[in-house]
Order: sequence, then C-alpha cells, then structure tokens
Amino acid sequence: MPGSTYGKCFKITTWGESHGKAIGVVIDGCPAGLTLCEEDIQIFLDRRKPGQNKYSTPRKEADQVDILSGIFEGKTTGTPISCIVYNKTARSQDYSQIASYYRPGHADYTFDAKYGFRDYRGGGRTSGRETIGRVAAGAIASKILNELGIRLCAYTRAIGPVEITHLDLDEIPKNPLYMPDFQAAEQAQKYLDEKLAEHNSAGGIIECCITGLFPGIGEPVFDKLDARLAQAILSIGAVKGFEIGDGFHAARLSGSENNDSFYADNGQIKKRTNHSGGVLGGLSDGSPIIFRAAVKPTPSIARNQQTVSKNMENIQINIKGRHDPVIVPRAVVVVESMAALTVLDLLLENMSARMDGIKRYYQSFNELPEFSC
Amino acid sequence: MPGSTYGKCFKITTWGESHGKAIGVVIDGCPAGLTLCEEDIQIFLDRRKPGQNKYSTPRKEADQVDILSGIFEGKTTGTPISCIVYNKTARSQDYSQIASYYRPGHADYTFDAKYGFRDYRGGGRTSGRETIGRVAAGAIASKILNELGIRLCAYTRAIGPVEITHLDLDEIPKNPLYMPDFQAAEQAQKYLDEKLAEHNSAGGIIECCITGLFPGIGEPVFDKLDARLAQAILSIGAVKGFEIGDGFHAARLSGSENNDSFYADNGQIKKRTNHSGGVLGGLSDGSPIIFRAAVKPTPSIARNQQTVSKNMENIQINIKGRHDPVIVPRAVVVVESMAALTVLDLLLENMSARMDGIKRYYQSFNELPEFSC
Amino acid sequence: MPGSTYGKCFKITTWGESHGKAIGVVIDGCPAGLTLCEEDIQIFLDRRKPGQNKYSTPRKEADQVDILSGIFEGKTTGTPISCIVYNKTARSQDYSQIASYYRPGHADYTFDAKYGFRDYRGGGRTSGRETIGRVAAGAIASKILNELGIRLCAYTRAIGPVEITHLDLDEIPKNPLYMPDFQAAEQAQKYLDEKLAEHNSAGGIIECCITGLFPGIGEPVFDKLDARLAQAILSIGAVKGFEIGDGFHAARLSGSENNDSFYADNGQIKKRTNHSGGVLGGLSDGSPIIFRAAVKPTPSIARNQQTVSKNMENIQINIKGRHDPVIVPRAVVVVESMAALTVLDLLLENMSARMDGIKRYYQSFNELPEFSC
Amino acid sequence: MPGSTYGKCFKITTWGESHGKAIGVVIDGCPAGLTLCEEDIQIFLDRRKPGQNKYSTPRKEADQVDILSGIFEGKTTGTPISCIVYNKTARSQDYSQIASYYRPGHADYTFDAKYGFRDYRGGGRTSGRETIGRVAAGAIASKILNELGIRLCAYTRAIGPVEITHLDLDEIPKNPLYMPDFQAAEQAQKYLDEKLAEHNSAGGIIECCITGLFPGIGEPVFDKLDARLAQAILSIGAVKGFEIGDGFHAARLSGSENNDSFYADNGQIKKRTNHSGGVLGGLSDGSPIIFRAAVKPTPSIARNQQTVSKNMENIQINIKGRHDPVIVPRAVVVVESMAALTVLDLLLENMSARMDGIKRYYQSFNELPEFSC
Repeated sequence: MPGSTYGKCFKITTWGESHGKAIGVVIDGCPAGLTLCEEDIQIFLDRRKPGQNKYSTPRKEADQVDILSGIFEGKTTGTPISCIVYNKTARSQDYSQIASYYRPGHADYTFDAKYGFRDYRGGGRTSGRETIGRVAAGAIASKILNELGIRLCAYTRAIGPVEITHLDLDEIPKNPLYMPDFQAAEQAQKYLDEKLAEHNSAGGIIECCITGLFPGIGEPVFDKLDARLAQAILSIGAVKGFEIGDGFHAARLSGSENNDSFYADNGQIKKRTNHSGGVLGGLSDGSPIIFRAAVKPTPSIARNQQTVSKNMENIQINIKGRHDPVIVPRAVVVVESMAALTVLDLLLENMSARMDGIKRYYQSFNELPEFSC
Repeated sequence: MPGSTYGKCFKITTWGESHGKAIGVVIDGCPAGLTLCEEDIQIFLDRRKPGQNKYSTPRKEADQVDILSGIFEGKTTGTPISCIVYNKTARSQDYSQIASYYRPGHADYTFDAKYGFRDYRGGGRTSGRETIGRVAAGAIASKILNELGIRLCAYTRAIGPVEITHLDLDEIPKNPLYMPDFQAAEQAQKYLDEKLAEHNSAGGIIECCITGLFPGIGEPVFDKLDARLAQAILSIGAVKGFEIGDGFHAARLSGSENNDSFYADNGQIKKRTNHSGGVLGGLSDGSPIIFRAAVKPTPSIARNQQTVSKNMENIQINIKGRHDPVIVPRAVVVVESMAALTVLDLLLENMSARMDGIKRYYQSFNELPEFSC
Repeated sequence: MPGSTYGKCFKITTWGESHGKAIGVVIDGCPAGLTLCEEDIQIFLDRRKPGQNKYSTPRKEADQVDILSGIFEGKTTGTPISCIVYNKTARSQDYSQIASYYRPGHADYTFDAKYGFRDYRGGGRTSGRETIGRVAAGAIASKILNELGIRLCAYTRAIGPVEITHLDLDEIPKNPLYMPDFQAAEQAQKYLDEKLAEHNSAGGIIECCITGLFPGIGEPVFDKLDARLAQAILSIGAVKGFEIGDGFHAARLSGSENNDSFYADNGQIKKRTNHSGGVLGGLSDGSPIIFRAAVKPTPSIARNQQTVSKNMENIQINIKGRHDPVIVPRAVVVVESMAALTVLDLLLENMSARMDGIKRYYQSFNELPEFSC
Repeated sequence: MPGSTYGKCFKITTWGESHGKAIGVVIDGCPAGLTLCEEDIQIFLDRRKPGQNKYSTPRKEADQVDILSGIFEGKTTGTPISCIVYNKTARSQDYSQIASYYRPGHADYTFDAKYGFRDYRGGGRTSGRETIGRVAAGAIASKILNELGIRLCAYTRAIGPVEITHLDLDEIPKNPLYMPDFQAAEQAQKYLDEKLAEHNSAGGIIECCITGLFPGIGEPVFDKLDARLAQAILSIGAVKGFEIGDGFHAARLSGSENNDSFYADNGQIKKRTNHSGGVLGGLSDGSPIIFRAAVKPTPSIARNQQTVSKNMENIQINIKGRHDPVIVPRAVVVVESMAALTVLDLLLENMSARMDGIKRYYQSFNELPEFSC
C-alpha cells in the first residue's frame, strides 16, 4: 500500500530516487493566499544540500527547486503545489556492484524481500535524497506557521559521545555541524575527523524546539501531537529513537519530581518547569515543544564488512560511492521540516474541534455577497 | 478532527469515558473466517484489569467484554466487530472537586483549551480505561498474528531506576510487575513500596519483542514499520519515549559497531547481531523486532501540589480518588496490543506490494464457480 | 479492507447485523459544545422505524437509541459519541432456509464469494437495519447544520411510475409515502396496493434539497461536493442511480439552455435558473443543492422465483420473512442523513482552505489566557 | 483540505493547471514488477488529446508524457511513479478578460468564493487538462487489470438527443465520437454541426462496461463498488448523473421484473439477466459491470450570455478562447480511466478480506530464504 503520503489537511506526497531523473513532492491542502516563491523553499533545501564541507558526501548537487503548479501571481491558489528538483550528477556506475549483494545496515535485503527487486543505484528510494521533498514541503509549512507566530528550531544535540552543554542559538549556523555550542562543535569535529581517518562513521542526536504554539493542538487519542511527531521523526531514515520532554529520563523520576506545577501570573497560566516537553495528554500545553531524535551512524563505510550476496554466498565487501560520514547535520533541517508538517497539519485539523469556533468561522461568510435562487 | 481511529486495513475506533456508561471499540477490516469468542478477548483484558494487587488502583471493575456484532456461528464474518465493556463502579462524586482546577501532569488544562470544557470525572476520555478498547482489538490482532506464526511478548524492563539484568520469559506472569527477572521484580517492589509510603509514584520502561515476522513488512517512506510503531506507542497516555533496537545508544556508536553483518547459513540469510531491532529502511528484516517505551510516573499523587484553579487563582491541591502508583505493569498489555495492531495492519497493507503476489492471490478464484452472463 | 467508515472530519463508523444483539454507530469528530440528547436522534430514527403502516415490514422494533459516550452535562465533549439500538424482535428462525440458497437481487451470493460465508439471518449486515447508524449520525449532523442556517429536506419524488407534479412540503409528513403532493400520494398508494396484491414490490425516486449552504463548499478535484454526495447516496442499499440538478436530462440540452445566468441584485449575486443543482466545478454555488436517487424495487417478494442452491442445484424459492413492499418511504430519511453527513464533512474540511480564514480563526486564541514557560 | 488524491491502495495525486508549466500525477501503491514504459501511457493520453477533429478544441498539445520515477530496468519498483506532461501552447492572453467576470456554468464564482481568488487562465485547475493525470494513472491501472483478465470498454452512448440503438464495439475507434453504432455516429455529427453553426454546444451520455471481474469485489457498506464508481465518475467535471445497471429505469420496475434469476450451468452460477449492472449489495456479482454517466453541454459558448462582473455589475459576455463544442468523446477515456482506478483499488483492498486468503498469501514466504537471529 502507498506510504509516500504524509498529513491529512496539509498532505504531502514525495516521489523520486537518488539516481532517477528527478526528485519531487506534491503538496495538497496548502491554504490559498500565502505569498510563496521558489526562494522560500530554496533556503531550506540549501540547509541540506550535499558537498558543503568534509562532513558530508562529496556528491555535488545544486538541488535547485522549480515550482510547477499551485501558485498564481505570487500566491498559493489552494490547488496542489508540485515541486521538482532534477538529479544532475547521478553516477549510477558507482553503484553497479551493489546490485549483487546486501549492504549491512541498509535496506537492500528488505526491499528485495518486499518488492522482489530494487533500484540499487545510490539506494534508490531509500536514499537521503528522498528527504528533498520533505524539506521543500517543510519550508512551506514553516512559512505558514511563522505567519501564525509559531517558530521551530532544530539543531545537533550530540555527535557520537560529544553532547552540547548549553544552548547558544546564534552559534547554530556558524559551525558545519549545526551545534548550538561552540566548544562541543569543536570537539565533535575532532571526533568526526578520527572517524573519517578510520573509514568509519558516526551518529548523534538532534533536538527540536517549537515555540508559540497555542494550547490544545493534537487529536486524542491516536493522533496525539507527540504520537504524530514520533511517526514523523521515525519515518526519517536512520532515526532509531524519539523522546519528548524528559523522555526516557522521566521513567526514572517520581511523580512529584516529574509533574510540572501550574501557576497564575497576571491572569496567565504558566508552568514552573517543562518536564512534559510542552505536551499533556497528547495536546500542546502552551509551553515549548521539545523533542529529540536518535540518529544511527551512517551504515556506508569504506572498510571491509562481511555480508551475503544475492546468490547466498558469504562475501567480504568494501563500499565505494559518495557518502556522508555523519548524516546528523544534514538531517537537522529534515527533522525541523517533519515537525513543521506535523504541527501545521494538527493545527488545521484542530479547526473543527468546537461549535463556537465553527460558528465564528462561518459567520465571516456574511461578508460575502449573499446568494439566493 | 477525529483521532480515535487507528489502522488502515485493520481499523479500530475506540470510544468511551472513565465514568460514562461503557467503554468500547469497533474493529472494521477483521478478515472473515477467524474463530473468535469473548474468552479470546477476556484473557487480554484481564491482564490490564485494575485492583489485582497493591500496585494498581483499588477501583474494582470486572471489565467483562461483550461482542455485539461481526461474529456468526463462532467465526468472524468480515463485518465490524463491536466490543463493549460496561463501567460498573463509576464513582463520579470522587472527582467533583477536579472540575474546578488543573491537575499537574494531567490533560485537564489542555482539554479545556481545546474543547472549551471537559468531562472531568476520572479523567474522562484521557483515563487509562480508554485502553480497554485497544486491548480488546489487540487481542484479536494477536490471535490472527499467532495463526501466521508471529508472536509478541511485552514485559516491564524497568521500574524507576530498577532495571532487569536478564530475560526469563517464564517469570513474567509470576510477579505483579510483569518483569522477566525475579530479582529485579523483588527490588522494584521494594522501590514501589517506598514510593507508596511517600504518597508518590513511579515510572518505568516497557520492552516488546516480536518474532516470526516475515521480512519486508512496512511501507516506505512515511509508514515505515518503526514509524508506525512509534506513533502507536506514543499514543498511549504517559509514554514519553520510543526506541527501536539500540535506539538512543546507537547514536553513540560508530558505523562498524552498529552495522549488523549478514551471513548465509544453509541457504538462509541471518544476521550476526541485531542492533537494528529487526528493521532496516523501515521494513522488517526477518530478525526479532525489539522496541522500548518510556513511561512517566503517574501524575496523580496524594500529596500537596501547587496549581491553578479555573478562575486563575494559585492554589494547593491533594488529589483524591483511586489511582495506580505505577501504571507500567498494567500498560504492558497495552503496548503489546498496539504493537499487534500495527504489525497486523502493515502485514495486510503489504499484500498489494507485488504483481506476482496479486496474481497468485487471484488465481485462487479459479477454484470458485466461474461466472458469466 | 474496512468499508464501514464514512467522512474525514465528521467520521462515522456503523456496525451491527439485522439479527445480532444490537446495531450502532460511533461518531468521531463531532465538535464540542453542541447541545445533544437522545431525543434529537430519536426523532430521526422514528422516521425510518418499521411497522408503521402496511407499506413497511411488519417487524416491530422500537429502535430506541441510547448514547453511551461523548456527552457530558448535555453537551458534546468532542470525543467519540457511541449510539446503540438493541434488536428486540429478531426472529432468526424465519431465515434458516435462506442459508442454503442465493436470493435473486440480494447480496447472498456476493457475500459468500467475498467472505466465504455469511450471516444469513435477515440479510445480516446488508439489511436495511444497518442504516440505523447512518440515521442516528445524520440526526447529529443535521442539528449542527441547522445551527449554521443550513436545512435539508428529502421526500419521495416517485413510486414506480407515479411521480409528483408539484412540491407541497407541508404534505410530506401527512402521507405514509412522504410525498409532497397529495394526489400523487393517493395514486402511489393505489399502485402499491396492486403490487401487494400481486405479492410483488415497487421502487421509486427520492429527491433531496439543501438550502442555506454557503458557496465554495466541496474539495476539488476528487472530493467534489456532488462526487461525495454520489458516493454517499449510492452506498445506500438498493440505490441504482444519482443525479444532481438536471442530471441525465442535462445531457440532452444545449449549452445555452443549460447554463445558469448570473445577475446582480442589490449587491448580491444570484442565478436566474438552477440547472446546475447548486454545484459548479464541484463546489456549492450558493443556490439550493438538488439531487435525486433511484431506488430499485425490494428484491424480497413472496412469489416463486428461480435460483440456485449453495450446492449448485437449480431450485424454485418463495421468500418468507418480514419485508417492505417498497423501501422508498423509509429510505427518505436515510438519503437526508447521508446528505447531511456529506455536507457537514465538507463544511469542516473547507475551514483550512484559506490563509485569511486560518489567521482569523486562531486570532481568537488571544482571548485565552496566554501561556509561557 | 486536500481533494486531489484518489484511491486507498492504488493512490493517485494529480496536480497542475491548464496554463501552468506542466500537468502531472503521482501514483503511489503501484505493485512492483509490472512491465511499464511511456508508450503504455501515451496510448491512453492520445485518446483524449485535443485538436484531433472539429469536435474538439483547436488547442494543439502533443501531451507527451515523461515518467520521472518508480521504474527501473523497465519494471515498476513499488515506489511512487511520477508522470509529467508539459503545457506547450498555453496562450494565457486569451483568458485575461475572464479574470474580471464569472462565466455561467463555470466554477469561476465558486473558486473565488472558496479561495478568495483564482488562476483564471483557461480555467486553471478546473480545466479538462487536469484529467491528463487521471488518464495517465488509468492507463497503468488498466494494464494491471488486463493482466488479471479484466477488461474495460467505455464509449459514447448518446450525443444530445441522439442515442445508439445497438452495440458494435469495432466501430468505436472508427468515428470521432467513439460511438459503437455507425448510423448514430453519423446522426450525432449532424447534430453537432448544427450546434457548431449556432455557436452552441452539446452534452451526452457515456457508458462503460467491465468484464472479467471476479465476484465479491467492493467493500460494504460505504465503499461499495457502485458507490465508489459514482464518486469517481461524478468527480469528472461536467458529469451530472451516474447510474448502474438499469439505474433510474429500475425505479419504475416491479421486483419480479427487476430481479435477476440465478441458474446453474455445468457447475457454474449464472444470471439470466443483468438488471443489476453486475453489482449486488455493493459487491461485484461476476457478471459485466455496466454504468452510465450524464455529461452536460460545454458551458463555454461563443454567443452572448448575461452574467455578473467581479464588481457586481450586470454585463453581457461572449466567451473567446479554444473550447470543445462537446466534451463527451474526449471524456470517454477519462470515464474508462476512473473506472479502472476504482476497480483496481477495490481489487487490492479485497485482498485482506479472508483469513484463508491471507494465510495462502503468506505461505508463499516459505519459499524465501528463512531468517533467524
């Protein structure tokens, strides 16, 4: 069954393979009247563009986006927005060897098991390039959220064992690892240099913070805000864990330690702490949403590995091709995009939650010329 | 928008509040021809039934299930199966006080923010009793999976800081905490006794293992097996984190440490390790699926807490009513049920993945009396 | 796959068989804050209740509805509303014979072909009693629409060859056939009396008119208002055709005859005619929505018919049991209910169509106590 | 909310405007292993290509399709198939005038009402060119159905008042109106020539027949085969009615006339008549599916019409641009495509209907190399 569609109100469908002609996304359900141009999307795509430093794949791709529909005179029309990025430097010959065996840590075997065969060139559909569509859509979602006063900020919390010790948001774009901590970024680069020297790879942790979100967003019981975020984040290749607020640490706390006290401050409700990560009962509680994603080390490593060929022989391989020694920095914008898509979707879903809201919404129709026949 | 439905092929819709007349679930898409009776479901419900020991709420409920539709002569007919459990010992008066303030760690404030008001009796829809519907449906999903040779086993991995050190599956049903480790269970009970004495509560970690699952189950890219499991598990109240395989630990490993080598053994493909937790590229890889859920401590504690009343006054409260000092043991079967629902759903979704499979499936129609007009 | 769910925002799931314990519906996505009680639903159910005159089945059922969840202190809470109606006078023994053969015009053969066997008692899931759930949900949808100034009115347009010649809405509840034309109702009853005497049955046409609907409701391109109405209406058993506005007659007109001219009247846009039936490009155009459903004659007739037994013998049957000689009058409220469900669903879907609407909606959140952490 | 997606298992999303850069479709859920190339799709697109004779718009478009993803080495891979057709001869200037007023019979007013403004060039998203995506997807669906022995055949049943009197399938591609009756086609052309001379337009009726479909396809109760077909067909612009089998005529028949008798013939079940149109209880009954669509006359006519301008003035217009005097012939392949998409989708949905089918399907996994860890 289809799995390339995400969202109910703001629905995206991604398509494309690493070494096919192009990669793209169709966004259906984007509200009409949003000012939008390619540059709005390009800014996001540039954050995940490869080849920008030694910690990402040397494959050079401009990843220039073209909008093919859904915009008229600079504004969204409410009809599907089709975005396309052409693959310019596909070098399929690099991958011909992969066809014959199953790379450890990759989806080669599982795709063969499911579909009978696979487009093995650069990982085909399982390539990180699939996320181009997500990021293009996430850029649009983020723009809408910004207009509502909601902001998202994702960054690298850890690379391998190196974790940030404080949060300096200004630092994020200044280092190639998108870490909000200058010292940690330095250490992490040293750690990565070691891994590069060993022909090895690293993982890490991405954190994302969402501010300005109204309370009450999320749909009980299966479409809780945190449940949908979890699906969104785990749907990113290489993500192996998700936690919100105190997450796994909360499992060790007592109730009196973990509960966030409410208090009133000048007629406003506030919380003294945010162990919950901004979600209570699956609904946003008005405080910042904070969640983390665990990213495994890149499975493609240029050192000898044991595996099995398609005709069931035990073999030794050494993976060639262009790969990222760590995908965490480039995945930061993917995490942020998936969060934006999720929050926007639930924000739109929430609009039919209350009779008073529905009435208020449709009363505005009185402003339209009335109609009778 | 609606949020009480889960699944695409095996679709469940739960309904009911803690102190309403009844709690239930409608299962649509259950394949026809499954032998099924109330007892199959009751066995699962009894695993989450309250009041069985001092570590669960003293509220006594028989939680006796009645099947109202979808079964004929002992077999499922392919039409919706409606299951109902009547609430027998609702004591709404215990909760009248809750109406006027927001309990820390609960969804009182967020429900008011979303819907304008709430059914405050025993948490209304956010009560753990909502999971009765999930467990009833999970029992049916598990029965189907068992007929296909797939087995699920969830258990308590940790209570607060007490974690198991080994896996003794026979031990699970023998202790009230469903821990697969006798010593850890003893220690955890001591820890809980302390928390009970302090009028405090505890959290913990639930682990689930799924064996016998064919490779290739899961739908790329947004409906990956692990992504859907993550949503399913985070949709359970009080769950704050999800990880599969090595999870957050994988973020600290190098590629060479984290990759699972394939090898051929008598014409079979095997993996030497299972860091992946049985999923590669979002598809099952044929090895056991292993995931964990972090559960926060019960927010209802019978000690003084600071909070805010509905009319914005800072107040001190002390929660009465019947609560679980730890919900982990009773949540074990809920986690197992949500996993069963997810795996079964993806197993059915997978049936249309390949032309050869579709052809083989419909060739069986030749056995039917042919039809012409 | 599941087929018993209808709607995206206002989602209903029906369950139950003719001779099972009960029939019901779960409504998920009903906005919070609607005043609702059983009586609101009972009024609708009474319109389809059997046994009220000689033109409907003699089976006596009170069809008393009970609401099990989703209401608190007389208002909807935003959580699922579970409605149940117990089957009181199931007489399964009447149907034991049906088990062994396939009734012409019924779904006996097709259910066996799909599911391998069937609950044959009174048609099981294919019984008209399944529509109880639709009507209960339709009553709620209609109440919401009424609060927005939208009204629906369905009636019998034709019984067999007898068609109404004018529209007298007051007449509808006065005759047992729900026809808005006294003379036609008289003639139709004579026609039905003939059919009854012949142990035969009749079909007819139901028309429905919806007024007060704002322009712009419907979702291009596959979820057009008329497309969704068509699915909703054809999903009712025995309906064989759907047309909107001039429908099949429009196929014979020229463009100049069929186009509805717009004109301005005191700053309002109006149409001089309504050939379109209130829909242009799949969106409501502000004029009344008018559509028709063709209903086939009841297939159960108490006269000899040729058919085939389960073991492939040519046999002659004569159907016993309690049946309606014409289902049109009782189907009127079912058509109206399905229309209400469809229109409400699309009305809620429409709320996220425009940036200005979304902004206006969420600006109301400023009235809530602000939140920070 | 999004409306440009159709199907659950074989899911298509169309995008694009008449005068935008391109038109396209993404097909997700296409089973892997289908031999597919652009030519398979082009054959279908050529059937709806404009400018082929005087009865279609003079706009010249090659409508050449390019497949951008989802195919590898000539076979579908199971991942999304993205098809694109570039708009070559967009002449937006023809339409500049349309911006300022509302054309009768068009969606100009309703799009403005819904979205606040519209892409008015050539109808924007409401143009018949949107159906390019449907036909491209329908070509793939048809190819799959053909491999299962299922065939679809749509044709023009009537143009205005001229209806076919018999069925000569060989004749269909021989006349520009796709009518299966040489004499009727001659008469219809005369009728159209008159309409052209009057600067007027015509409507008509399209009929479609599906053979080889197994019994039991369709999902009770809301996703009945005929209900889904009705939505699919009404979602095509200009369609105002749908009927299956005897349709509206059935409403006038008695039960004894309308029931189709079953009989056994050499161990096969057959029906003596097919009033039902191949559907009983919403499931295919093994006999041919026969349905009809009523198409309204083209609303764009080059004669004076009364309407309203955007600033509420009563004006007279005369529509310029390139239009079809009748859209029926070009809509034939669109109807066939939507039917193919619907039938294929329900065929895939049906695969999880029965336990024995599921078991048989997954037993084939034993042929795969077994897996353990």
